[in-house]
Amino acid sequence: MAIKITGTGSYIPNNVAKNEDFIQHEFLNEDGTSINHHNDIIIKKFKAITGIGERRYAEDHHNTSDLAFFAAQKAIKDSKIDQEDLDYIIVGHNYGDVKHNTEQSDTVPSIGSRVKHLLGIKNPKCVAYDVLFGCPGWNEGLIQANAFIKAGIAKKCLVIGAEALSRVLDKHDRDSMIYSDGAGAVVLEETNEEGGILNHESATYALDEAHFIYFGETNNQAVTDQRKYIKMYGRKIYEFALNHVPPALKSCLDQSGYQIGDLKKILIHQANEKMDEAIVQRFYKLYNMEMPKGIMPMSIGKLGNSSVATIPTLLDLILKGKLEGHSINKGDIVMFASVGAGMNINAITYKF
Amino acid sequence: MAIKITGTGSYIPNNVAKNEDFIQHEFLNEDGTSINHHNDIIIKKFKAITGIGERRYAEDHHNTSDLAFFAAQKAIKDSKIDQEDLDYIIVGHNYGDVKHNTEQSDTVPSIGSRVKHLLGIKNPKCVAYDVLFGCPGWNEGLIQANAFIKAGIAKKCLVIGAEALSRVLDKHDRDSMIYSDGAGAVVLEETNEEGGILNHESATYALDEAHFIYFGETNNQAVTDQRKYIKMYGRKIYEFALNHVPPALKSCLDQSGYQIGDLKKILIHQANEKMDEAIVQRFYKLYNMEMPKGIMPMSIGKLGNSSVATIPTLLDLILKGKLEGHSINKGDIVMFASVGAGMNINAITYKF
Repeated sequence: MAIKITGTGSYIPNNVAKNEDFIQHEFLNEDGTSINHHNDIIIKKFKAITGIGERRYAEDHHNTSDLAFFAAQKAIKDSKIDQEDLDYIIVGHNYGDVKHNTEQSDTVPSIGSRVKHLLGIKNPKCVAYDVLFGCPGWNEGLIQANAFIKAGIAKKCLVIGAEALSRVLDKHDRDSMIYSDGAGAVVLEETNEEGGILNHESATYALDEAHFIYFGETNNQAVTDQRKYIKMYGRKIYEFALNHVPPALKSCLDQSGYQIGDLKKILIHQANEKMDEAIVQRFYKLYNMEMPKGIMPMSIGKLGNSSVATIPTLLDLILKGKLEGHSINKGDIVMFASVGAGMNINAITYKF
Repeated sequence: MAIKITGTGSYIPNNVAKNEDFIQHEFLNEDGTSINHHNDIIIKKFKAITGIGERRYAEDHHNTSDLAFFAAQKAIKDSKIDQEDLDYIIVGHNYGDVKHNTEQSDTVPSIGSRVKHLLGIKNPKCVAYDVLFGCPGWNEGLIQANAFIKAGIAKKCLVIGAEALSRVLDKHDRDSMIYSDGAGAVVLEETNEEGGILNHESATYALDEAHFIYFGETNNQAVTDQRKYIKMYGRKIYEFALNHVPPALKSCLDQSGYQIGDLKKILIHQANEKMDEAIVQRFYKLYNMEMPKGIMPMSIGKLGNSSVATIPTLLDLILKGKLEGHSINKGDIVMFASVGAGMNINAITYKF
């Protein structure tokens, strides 16, 4: 028996926000002081570090649950299952549904319930819930679905990552240029094939790191309301990720029984291109190797950081032949790796 | 091997809000019209149906994650485990941390990460995440922990239900008198004893029922902001629960291999005393029996509906000898049953 992904789908919003669109923004330091550069310099530096040239924002009338639904529909169709046979709908997200021009997160009912409603699934035994685990929430949902199948309480699970970070942006924060919206989904099933999820690792670093990514006030000190926005300590996250993700990847791969030379792709969460490169270089260094060319497919340039949606979207793009220069073939060993709010890290070794 | 609860803890806030405290409220119908009764009549009717005489509200400086932490501390101490040995911290909630006098839900980092931080757990392999599944979220967390232990990826899990519904109340809505704050927690472990979790059932009814409990605007039509509050269609929920919970209980008990006569207690989610009585009566009717006296311990009179916190708190009170007239002894067969936003239903048959 193997537990395998039998269908993928993604939803990439049509609204493109280019770096140039931020040229009129009043960016401020965290303490409210002005930044001693013109916006064109700020944006150039931003592009050089993160690799992000543009990002996608959900249309005003869509919420996270809508994006999740669009991706789910495609994954179900791709898997060719009857959606009434699903045992679980698991949705990773962070902020629930935040309607355009409002500030409250709506998580009741769960995004999973909303997706099930939109899909029109009748079977009450299809259990829908949400998992909150920062950006690694989609990976973690996949790990949970894998456990349910192993424990004998599920055979087919729909695992979705969906987020609309455009709804929680502080326009006075340079980091706001990182965030994006989207959704990706897969169907995970018990099959008679070999391969699938070989093993996985998860970790939560909360002692000193719990609030590295947090919900905080605007950088604009003139604003006196208590409204909060997605915020992060970028430098601390960079150091944290570089210290902890490479050994987690190594531990996960080593336990799979496969060798570093067998590894064909690493689908890593995309928040910052330079950081991802440094992580994967350091991972290969643990094996005294150079990072192979093409090992790390990137979508960040065009899609930004869509949190939980990033990895399943990237996977869908590759499998559908929509990411130039990248493909995954039967038998390929691939890792899914993520790091984000919590601070959480996880990795999965997967054989296609 | 048995998967058993080895420690329980709860946190009941000190702030008591009595029914009399609502006497000056301006209650309105959903359409904003006045209710044709004085508040003393409204409150008397409310008490007669729900059984609620008073409820608890978190102190102003506490958030849901604090309540969760207080309950978790006690459960860990009660279980006598080393908290560094925990493999999972799973927190069921609905609204995250909503600070007093603010309206935004804060779910980044997850409540699980915050609890782990507050507990001071160093071990990164202790994975902390949140599950959103409406009021049945604590039961569902227990079902997930059980699956992780069965799948071999965990041995010891902390499962918490915590909620501060006082932060999302529409004071113009009579239903606001139902809601309460609190937290309950258990440690679930692989043991060499017999019994523990025997089996479980979960269901999500989302086709017509997804929005029976929802986040909606105040009944006061004079208010023009978009702020949302916890809302429900009480009559629809009543009918839904009466139709679907009794057969779910029966299916769960029957599959456990035990007989209805073996059942010692049903710990049911407490949102409405009359509804709970009707559910359990109908459950016994499926076996052509009368509901036995003392089968359904109630805490709602003093504690209101604290959502995910209700069942673990009730369990803790009984096991600690703090619920008059009720006890659970070694070998007793007990069911945990819940229904709530989603609309979700679940039930667990457990042997102590």
